[in-house]
Amino acid sequence: MSADAWIEWSALAEPADDAAGWLVSTLGPDAAREWVDVAARDVVEATIMLAGSAPERTITDVVRASERWARRREGAQAAALRERAQRCGARVVVRDDPEWPVAVDSLGQGAPFALWVRGVEPLGGLFLRSVAIVGARSSTSYGDHVASTIAAHAADHGWSVVSGGAYGIDAAAHRGALAAGGRTLAVMAGGVDRLYPAGNSDLLARVLDQGAVMSEVPPGWAPHRSRFLTRNRLIACASATVVVEAARRSGALSTANRAAELARPVAAVPGPVTSAASAGCHTLVRDGVAVLVTGGADLVELAGPIDLHGGDAENGAAADDTGGTPEFAAPADRAVFDALGRRARDLDALATTAGLTLAEARAALGRLELAGAVVRDRHRWRRKPDPRAKRFATR
Amino acid sequence: MSADAWIEWSALAEPADDAAGWLVSTLGPDAAREWVDVAARDVVEATIMLAGSAPERTITDVVRASERWARRREGAQAAALRERAQRCGARVVVRDDPEWPVAVDSLGQGAPFALWVRGVEPLGGLFLRSVAIVGARSSTSYGDHVASTIAAHAADHGWSVVSGGAYGIDAAAHRGALAAGGRTLAVMAGGVDRLYPAGNSDLLARVLDQGAVMSEVPPGWAPHRSRFLTRNRLIACASATVVVEAARRSGALSTANRAAELARPVAAVPGPVTSAASAGCHTLVRDGVAVLVTGGADLVELAGPIDLHGGDAENGAAADDTGGTPEFAAPADRAVFDALGRRARDLDALATTAGLTLAEARAALGRLELAGAVVRDRHRWRRKPDPRAKRFATR
Repeated sequence: MSADAWIEWSALAEPADDAAGWLVSTLGPDAAREWVDVAARDVVEATIMLAGSAPERTITDVVRASERWARRREGAQAAALRERAQRCGARVVVRDDPEWPVAVDSLGQGAPFALWVRGVEPLGGLFLRSVAIVGARSSTSYGDHVASTIAAHAADHGWSVVSGGAYGIDAAAHRGALAAGGRTLAVMAGGVDRLYPAGNSDLLARVLDQGAVMSEVPPGWAPHRSRFLTRNRLIACASATVVVEAARRSGALSTANRAAELARPVAAVPGPVTSAASAGCHTLVRDGVAVLVTGGADLVELAGPIDLHGGDAENGAAADDTGGTPEFAAPADRAVFDALGRRARDLDALATTAGLTLAEARAALGRLELAGAVVRDRHRWRRKPDPRAKRFATR
Repeated sequence: MSADAWIEWSALAEPADDAAGWLVSTLGPDAAREWVDVAARDVVEATIMLAGSAPERTITDVVRASERWARRREGAQAAALRERAQRCGARVVVRDDPEWPVAVDSLGQGAPFALWVRGVEPLGGLFLRSVAIVGARSSTSYGDHVASTIAAHAADHGWSVVSGGAYGIDAAAHRGALAAGGRTLAVMAGGVDRLYPAGNSDLLARVLDQGAVMSEVPPGWAPHRSRFLTRNRLIACASATVVVEAARRSGALSTANRAAELARPVAAVPGPVTSAASAGCHTLVRDGVAVLVTGGADLVELAGPIDLHGGDAENGAAADDTGGTPEFAAPADRAVFDALGRRARDLDALATTAGLTLAEARAALGRLELAGAVVRDRHRWRRKPDPRAKRFATR
């Protein structure tokens, strides 16, 4: 079963393992998982299985990598991993789940195999209309103030906040979102069983109550240094990223650069030129990586509206009755929404009408449900009747 | 005599008077001056003199404007103006003088008719390699610190500073340049007889000793509000402009926009987004008018080198003997420099070889002399023999 294979891959390979990404996307998670067992038994047979499917260099890399994956097979049993997750109140989300955040699919082969989550909010919704607020651990009180203010503004305007769990700007961003009663997501470098660092555990516990804490490594995994860097690419999948304070070599700059590579809007907050904590932000602006923003209003404008009801998001005004054109996160969402019309239909019929595979149609329905555009009635789906409804119906 | 006509025009018309600019550049300063007398005597005759030389609208504007010019004729006598200048230790510089700063010719018809100057430094040299440092009167200590630091860095690297005479950023910029032993120019909205505002008179007196104070209005003229705005366009003629602190409606923004219109590099220093004094700077960067700079090094890099000896400006290293190619402020400068060869030649011969008018060749020689590239021996000129010589030989 694919879900188990995804889960096991998340424990076999380190995040952003190129060889694993290639193998899984080439063979699919199940066959790729089986191939690891073959490689452990007979490396020649395993090599022959791949011969001709890629340049020699790639196959060499994958066969070599199989050794390190094989060594982890014992700790990578889906059942045991699920059990460990359950013990710490975590759930696991894989690609075809309705909760899967399509935003991370932008990473292509570098996308995570599974996401381990604790908290009340579905991941898909948290990423759908989100701003990543990142910056220095050793922030100044100015940076903390600005990060909190931007987060609160974003939360007030229906955007969720995405950040790490570190001291400094990360913590200030979560605090701002929480204070505004908004949703916030902390992306951890280690397993979600441990709310790291310990000094932020109270704060992260509150994040669980108003949003979620997620990681691509299973519970029990330690927050190694390299995992902070790979973790940054997940944060960069938010709809937009803003760097609030960052010294010249801050890790937040890698998040900003990854976000730019993913074609997401990137912003930076200026500060005093006499403050080393703002030097990285100024470099981002000067190098044209980031747009200068001075507050939450700028950022929300940059991130752009996704208005599923065609109405006014700010004051909850209804769409006109003819139905303003909603904006969709993916073309499949529009196809499914259009196929729905006003009457309830089942998945099979929808997929046929929309010209999508079942998996594609299911994923689109998941996203639309999270965005409050459709509702499910057992096996049938229909458009949400009341345009005045809250935008994120799953809350 | 043209010089007298230029001087009288500087007292007849307000700065940046479009009608006066058009008339003087169309008829030349002498004929334009005479035309004002004709218009005072016989408006029909004056109109007929211009008929056909411009669209009706322009001629109407000029004839109407002649009334206000005529009313000022009594106070606009060259001899009396020169005398008044002499009394306050000022000199007057007009277009064909070697001291004339070619930088202001970028203003076209809006260029000043004459410049009234007090101080030790020739205007041409002050503008040749100059950075305008402008900003808020109500600056913060942060802004003052940054303005002084940038000015000192620029002065240390052979750039003169150009600013107004106001409290706040202007004063901080002059202080920084003076402290570094550099050259600085204060451009006044009123006459140079009065070092305005009074609270800065000690500072401006020191500017006279290390640079100059200049104005396009004659001594005795008051610093009216509108003259501050027109004065800004002269500051914008510096090689580059940086805004250090500016609130949203600061006059410094008009200087920045004028500099951008003149195709000069424009920079802005960021500050805390919580500081209203930096809001205008952030807007300039976000709107793409200004480049973000964090200090003097950025600014000097943006303003760009003018290396007349092809050597290393920083440590005075000599050019190689084949003569590295100098960079010139104007094509005429290169033509004259090339025409010089190694032997002394007189103006007539130079103009002929370089294919320039006498006035053009004279202006180019003035600039080259100021830049230390040529020396004069009575009526003959030659290239400066020693490439190790100081870059600004006239100091």
